[in-house]
Amino acid sequence: MPTYSAPVKDIKFLLHEYFNLQQYNNLPSFAEATPDLIDAILEEAAKVTENVFQPLNLPGDEQGCRLENGKVITPDGFKEAYNQYVEGGWQGLTGDPEYGGQGMPQTLGLVLNELMVSANWGFAMYPGLTKGATESIHTWGTEEQKQKYLPKMYAAEWSGTMNLTEPHCGTDLGLLRTKAEPNDDGSYKISGTKIFISAGDHDLTENVIHLVLAKIPGGPEGVKGISLFIVPRNKINDDGSIGDNNGVSVGSLEEKMGIHSNATCVMNFDEAEGYLLGQEHKGMRAMFTMMNEARLGVAIQGYAIAEVAQQNAAIYANDRIQGRALTGAKNPDAKADPIIVHPDVRRMLMTNRAFIEGARAMAIWAGIQVDITRQHPDEAAKNKAEELLALITPVLKSYMTDQGVEAASRALQCFGGHGYIREWGMEQFLRDSRIAPIYEGTNGIQAMDLIGRKLPANGGAAIRAYFEMIQTFIDANKDNDAMGTYIPLLEKALGRLQAASMWLMQNGMANPDNAGAAAHYYLNLMALVTMGYFWADMARKAREMLDAGEGDTTFLNNKLTTADFFFHHILPETSALKVKIEAGADSVMGLDAGAF
Amino acid sequence: MPTYSAPVKDIKFLLHEYFNLQQYNNLPSFAEATPDLIDAILEEAAKVTENVFQPLNLPGDEQGCRLENGKVITPDGFKEAYNQYVEGGWQGLTGDPEYGGQGMPQTLGLVLNELMVSANWGFAMYPGLTKGATESIHTWGTEEQKQKYLPKMYAAEWSGTMNLTEPHCGTDLGLLRTKAEPNDDGSYKISGTKIFISAGDHDLTENVIHLVLAKIPGGPEGVKGISLFIVPRNKINDDGSIGDNNGVSVGSLEEKMGIHSNATCVMNFDEAEGYLLGQEHKGMRAMFTMMNEARLGVAIQGYAIAEVAQQNAAIYANDRIQGRALTGAKNPDAKADPIIVHPDVRRMLMTNRAFIEGARAMAIWAGIQVDITRQHPDEAAKNKAEELLALITPVLKSYMTDQGVEAASRALQCFGGHGYIREWGMEQFLRDSRIAPIYEGTNGIQAMDLIGRKLPANGGAAIRAYFEMIQTFIDANKDNDAMGTYIPLLEKALGRLQAASMWLMQNGMANPDNAGAAAHYYLNLMALVTMGYFWADMARKAREMLDAGEGDTTFLNNKLTTADFFFHHILPETSALKVKIEAGADSVMGLDAGAF
Repeated sequence: MPTYSAPVKDIKFLLHEYFNLQQYNNLPSFAEATPDLIDAILEEAAKVTENVFQPLNLPGDEQGCRLENGKVITPDGFKEAYNQYVEGGWQGLTGDPEYGGQGMPQTLGLVLNELMVSANWGFAMYPGLTKGATESIHTWGTEEQKQKYLPKMYAAEWSGTMNLTEPHCGTDLGLLRTKAEPNDDGSYKISGTKIFISAGDHDLTENVIHLVLAKIPGGPEGVKGISLFIVPRNKINDDGSIGDNNGVSVGSLEEKMGIHSNATCVMNFDEAEGYLLGQEHKGMRAMFTMMNEARLGVAIQGYAIAEVAQQNAAIYANDRIQGRALTGAKNPDAKADPIIVHPDVRRMLMTNRAFIEGARAMAIWAGIQVDITRQHPDEAAKNKAEELLALITPVLKSYMTDQGVEAASRALQCFGGHGYIREWGMEQFLRDSRIAPIYEGTNGIQAMDLIGRKLPANGGAAIRAYFEMIQTFIDANKDNDAMGTYIPLLEKALGRLQAASMWLMQNGMANPDNAGAAAHYYLNLMALVTMGYFWADMARKAREMLDAGEGDTTFLNNKLTTADFFFHHILPETSALKVKIEAGADSVMGLDAGAF
Repeated sequence: MPTYSAPVKDIKFLLHEYFNLQQYNNLPSFAEATPDLIDAILEEAAKVTENVFQPLNLPGDEQGCRLENGKVITPDGFKEAYNQYVEGGWQGLTGDPEYGGQGMPQTLGLVLNELMVSANWGFAMYPGLTKGATESIHTWGTEEQKQKYLPKMYAAEWSGTMNLTEPHCGTDLGLLRTKAEPNDDGSYKISGTKIFISAGDHDLTENVIHLVLAKIPGGPEGVKGISLFIVPRNKINDDGSIGDNNGVSVGSLEEKMGIHSNATCVMNFDEAEGYLLGQEHKGMRAMFTMMNEARLGVAIQGYAIAEVAQQNAAIYANDRIQGRALTGAKNPDAKADPIIVHPDVRRMLMTNRAFIEGARAMAIWAGIQVDITRQHPDEAAKNKAEELLALITPVLKSYMTDQGVEAASRALQCFGGHGYIREWGMEQFLRDSRIAPIYEGTNGIQAMDLIGRKLPANGGAAIRAYFEMIQTFIDANKDNDAMGTYIPLLEKALGRLQAASMWLMQNGMANPDNAGAAAHYYLNLMALVTMGYFWADMARKAREMLDAGEGDTTFLNNKLTTADFFFHHILPETSALKVKIEAGADSVMGLDAGAF
């Protein structure tokens, strides 16, 4: 059975030392979140994820969910574990105190999210979807709606979902068919079928609040005629108690590759009573509130699964003896050395480590930007954070989820044949990880979003701010001898990204297929440059602390070695990406569609 | 349900046009294999794999194997399908005619292998293991052993296995504990437990012939004391009929990530009667006969699974409508265009295509080398083929299986959310594919084999022959205008491989960890250069045929476009690999083992 130990030490280094969250205490949420409080929350989160959620991960995968008499039953133990989640008050951690939330920074919510997913991805999705729904209701709901739903949802007594996809449309929501016919009382009759609804139904809460995209008849064609509705599974009586079923039922559960313990439902809405959330025909905008948040959440799933897979691979590699070190026996009294002595095993572990720690820094940085956009008193700071966040969200979602799959696969590989066997749990990590490049917008869609929407937005302001952020760092550290290895390599990689951006501007206009063919490569190039920036900057901080005699010397020296690995064994991939971008679309699009 | 259509056209192009197999008709097997006979065999193989084996693939995965009263039961329909395989005489295709085989080239056996795996990997492994066992018995068996086993095994009436791995040892066979105690009659009593035995038992044949590695007490320590034994599950009476169980039983079946329809057994040998195959204590050598063949077989699994996954992705991409082409609607009468218009979908399909067709050429070339090593009248030609084959086998095994996983994953991605759902079958391809980088020696072991054994062997003769082969091609085509795009890029990639080889020689001696850390990168660099060579050469042939007005113009032009794609979107990866190799082992090995 796999194990999990929350990486509290690394997270504390990032929150307290590297990002120094205290510097943001002009924001209300950070003012509340003193280092001591953060540490206490972290320690509690570690306990519940390690001891309560993680042990249910493998059995939950094996048992899965089942549909009995129209009701979804989650795996054994999930209800009890969920009760502990409710009792711990975890769902309301970052919620608005006006509606019963605890007002902690979103940054801390992201960190909790990592721990939850590492411990039990399928379980974590139930509260995860609720979080997305409360964000939408909080942003777009009327005061009455907020009063009605948020306290119950922050308390995790009701859960939430997002209902977008239909059998014939996922990416292209303009095609959707679910109807919302107005009733006389201002509510709507919602009818249609939605598919792939994660946590669509279950036995963990007394009600499920669906957010549903639908078209009001007579509205504009395509995405401009889509509205968002709140559709509770059970009606809610005036006194707040739960009433009859509201015409919402589960058609079936999907058999999937992984995340078996989360119910992926076909949802049928049969004249269900729905309430407009936000404005008529502005559903896409409201949806994106949920979506952007959700994309960051999915990005985190990528390195969260990598973290737990890596932990187990490291344990196995230290434990399993097989063969001898190339440089002479390390374990001469035994018949063989532990496989961690083999450089190729180390290569896999170091590749994962550099990814995980780099990704965690990037995600926490993004979390801070979320908090700044919501609470910063200075409008300019807010705008800049908004721009950078919009730019980087698709990059993180796509790169981290692709790499999450790769990292889970490398960790599995460390186990040899045992990695392929269910009881070791490594193959579950890989199966679970594979959903993340697909949902919340496929990674291809993320790349198109980056190239087609985020780069040109506001005359390219975001990418200029991004380049400036990195260039400023390079300039400030150029003469820092301790940074000698990193700065020239980062500058080279940045140069490649800048050249590729220029190429895109020039060639994407002439032929949009050039932009489309380059999108995936470009996104990965930007991800690597961004990660290079954070690795260089973390190395700077580690060096500074070492020089000042602060912190844990071993921990900080390990950061420096991992930074070295990133710069010499991962960042070089930028060279190939630039060449691929500049190769253009000719051979990509050269065949007739029928030739495949 | 996924479908499969054997890629007969591409295979015929390779066998007849590109490799022109007829040029080898000084070898007995090729002399028999006239183009007409090859085509007839291909058409029959296509029929049986498409119509009989493929329809059982998804149901076989869902049902899996079960153990009932000590007997393994394969999924419904497998027995009937296997009977058709027996009746078709497929097992003996490449077998020695002296023992009832049909004497066809091994090259043709490899092609059949591809079709079998594409259609139904789990099923294909039953005959696949038998093939490995017959090769070993044919090479190392006494005349009596050959007479006794080969005719029944060529007829597929008995199947075969390889029993290497034990719970505590896989890669490091020196640790193995299975004992072989001599009986007075020259036979041995075999006792021990073996794990991960593919096709270890089943209900398809009347007997299973196990080849088992074991130690004769008192022999040398480690791998030098290992011998190989023939251990039939049921004793064989003097009249050839099947006798009692021979102390061989199935301990349990493993629950795995994929290949569920193949029984992965824990095998218990309890004083089973075994017969020495080859010499005492020379079991490793005999094992490698099976192993090298098997590694090539596994390499083929990599692109075979990619082929079937790609076919289904292409069908879906042409069928599913979603969004609009960037260059204007391609399907203006419908509400959306098929997703194959999107460059990022094309990028995935083209990456797969370039891999599959390049890999197929490499595999068939390797198959031809196998035939040359066995039958060529000229000793020098034989030796050269042997050297090149030994060098390239780990490269093909590792690269093709890693890329097989990636290709299956890309094909799944083309389906969006549906790719994650079982009924579409794409997630099975990915789960099945993931075993190949592990078994028959993990890909890390392949890389070490390449660097540590194959490169230095015989004073580097193999790598010199390899460089010469490619350099000769470059020199011969430098002034060929039609090859203008390819030759300079191939030469650059070759230069990187040569420089990396030089670096390895210089730095791997001083610190073996430098070689170990570089091994995986170096193997991939060599794989890309090799594939570049074959793509350039296939392009040369396609261009020649077009100029001569021969062949199918569309097919040949598609080859050229795919070659373009390979050179501009895949081969550039060589640049990053060279940098990673030359980065050395410092940061790879820099952390204490306990730091993970």
